[in-house]
Amino acid sequence: VTATVALDAMGGDDAPEVTVRGALAARESGIEVILVGDGPTLEARLAEAGAPSGVPVHHAAGIVTMHDDPIAALRREPDSSIRVACQLVADGQAGAVVSAGSTGATLAAALLTIGRLPGIRRPVVAAVLPVADGRQTVLADAGGSMDVQAEVLAGYAAMGAAYAAVLGSAEPRIGLLNVGEEPGKGNELAKSAFALLEPIDGFVGNVEPPAVLAGAVDVVVTDGFTGNIFLKTIEAAWGPGSPHDSTALLLGVAGEVLVAHGAASADDVHRALQRAAHVAQAGLATRVARRMATGEETTS
Amino acid sequence: VTATVALDAMGGDDAPEVTVRGALAARESGIEVILVGDGPTLEARLAEAGAPSGVPVHHAAGIVTMHDDPIAALRREPDSSIRVACQLVADGQAGAVVSAGSTGATLAAALLTIGRLPGIRRPVVAAVLPVADGRQTVLADAGGSMDVQAEVLAGYAAMGAAYAAVLGSAEPRIGLLNVGEEPGKGNELAKSAFALLEPIDGFVGNVEPPAVLAGAVDVVVTDGFTGNIFLKTIEAAWGPGSPHDSTALLLGVAGEVLVAHGAASADDVHRALQRAAHVAQAGLATRVARRMATGEETTS
Repeated sequence: VTATVALDAMGGDDAPEVTVRGALAARESGIEVILVGDGPTLEARLAEAGAPSGVPVHHAAGIVTMHDDPIAALRREPDSSIRVACQLVADGQAGAVVSAGSTGATLAAALLTIGRLPGIRRPVVAAVLPVADGRQTVLADAGGSMDVQAEVLAGYAAMGAAYAAVLGSAEPRIGLLNVGEEPGKGNELAKSAFALLEPIDGFVGNVEPPAVLAGAVDVVVTDGFTGNIFLKTIEAAWGPGSPHDSTALLLGVAGEVLVAHGAASADDVHRALQRAAHVAQAGLATRVARRMATGEETTS
Repeated sequence: VTATVALDAMGGDDAPEVTVRGALAARESGIEVILVGDGPTLEARLAEAGAPSGVPVHHAAGIVTMHDDPIAALRREPDSSIRVACQLVADGQAGAVVSAGSTGATLAAALLTIGRLPGIRRPVVAAVLPVADGRQTVLADAGGSMDVQAEVLAGYAAMGAAYAAVLGSAEPRIGLLNVGEEPGKGNELAKSAFALLEPIDGFVGNVEPPAVLAGAVDVVVTDGFTGNIFLKTIEAAWGPGSPHDSTALLLGVAGEVLVAHGAASADDVHRALQRAAHVAQAGLATRVARRMATGEETTS
């Protein structure tokens, strides 16, 4: 698998300015990036930024904006930058794709081109929380699916654990985000999910927000509504100065797909590209598939 | 209405030590407090603390602990301190009750003795968040009911607005906690609640966590599961040094009922007693009833 990253250079509030600058910074740190988007526009931006020659640009004329309905926009714009960037991963020309555009459009484009892993009912948006002692915790779902069944949360646990393993947790501890630690706490979804998670290897039980931030688990599982409120509350309470990589991963897709914040800066794009190269090199999607099939990671 | 506060002196992890000390501090700041609990124990604690004579103690032999099932415990212990303290409010001997014991037991005792306001489907646990510029926002529900219908959230809005008015908001702005600002965002509950809240006077729409902490609304409405995660995440992210009054109010009961944190310190008990005296003087329950009946506050 190549660690080259296809960047949807037209996605995001401040594209293509920040995507071009982020890509150039990533290249300086040794990451291969293909800029995907309108060729003339990108070449002009690269020249303005004083880029060395030879930065790969892959032309794609269309754009899907934040205001478009994802599915309709992808049909209307088959040559949109996000779809073409995903196609590069499907074709093996890139090992990962990064977009700061709409999460919904990115997921739709990825499923259309790359497809989903076997056994995945629903892909999940996984974020990485910086917790105590400089450690990291995977949050799944960070905002992908609003209303889900408990069975879906069990899938999130397995996918999240594969990601946590790639981030360095030898035996990921999995917790269910809840309002109390004791079994039986929470809403109906949490109670049902607890019963399904209990037999899973690595499941440590319910975790409350303070325990998550203290680093009690490597993976925290919840529905996308709660997870998004949780993530946005942490970001808001910590304030703008917090050193937080807001890049999210779409787990359950048969390739590495990452979404940066719509308001991403060039630094954010750079960080997203670094993370993308890392998960591509680690073969995260393959590891997720293996864990979904066996319930545990095995050394390849 | 008297502003005397009945304090469940036996409720909480560190009762009666912190309740006695908190009550004495409150008395020094001019608040009348009746200590409710085991007479000999409380008298001995008062003597140890060097209390002046004449601090009112109302004997109640029983205790409901955090581990008890609330309803069963109240049946088994009709003379429990929380029930007797609530009875003092029902009888007009106190204007408010404070407990650092179980929220469930306090609500059950309050409903049994004081009863609920007309038109209230479900009382709500209302917390007060300190937000930007030293202002306050009422959070309803902060953790009372885990699974609710959208209609219930509309009731929370009216009750929360009455509380916000008592806290000083002339025309409380009400928001629905959600993952995005646009109508149509969120899970099924949020979408249904939005439609019911839209016609309510003061409703400003969906609010995301950063907007809540920035003080965009005076009341934020959500289900108890999400609200509890939201509250605990704020507390955890801000850390232990944050100047946060964790006292919650039970709105929808026909009297002033306040719950301090189980791990409350003497200072926390003192703050809860101050808040209790304030809402008793303001006649909050009456104002909630009026708003539930008319949809707005009218000057009494």
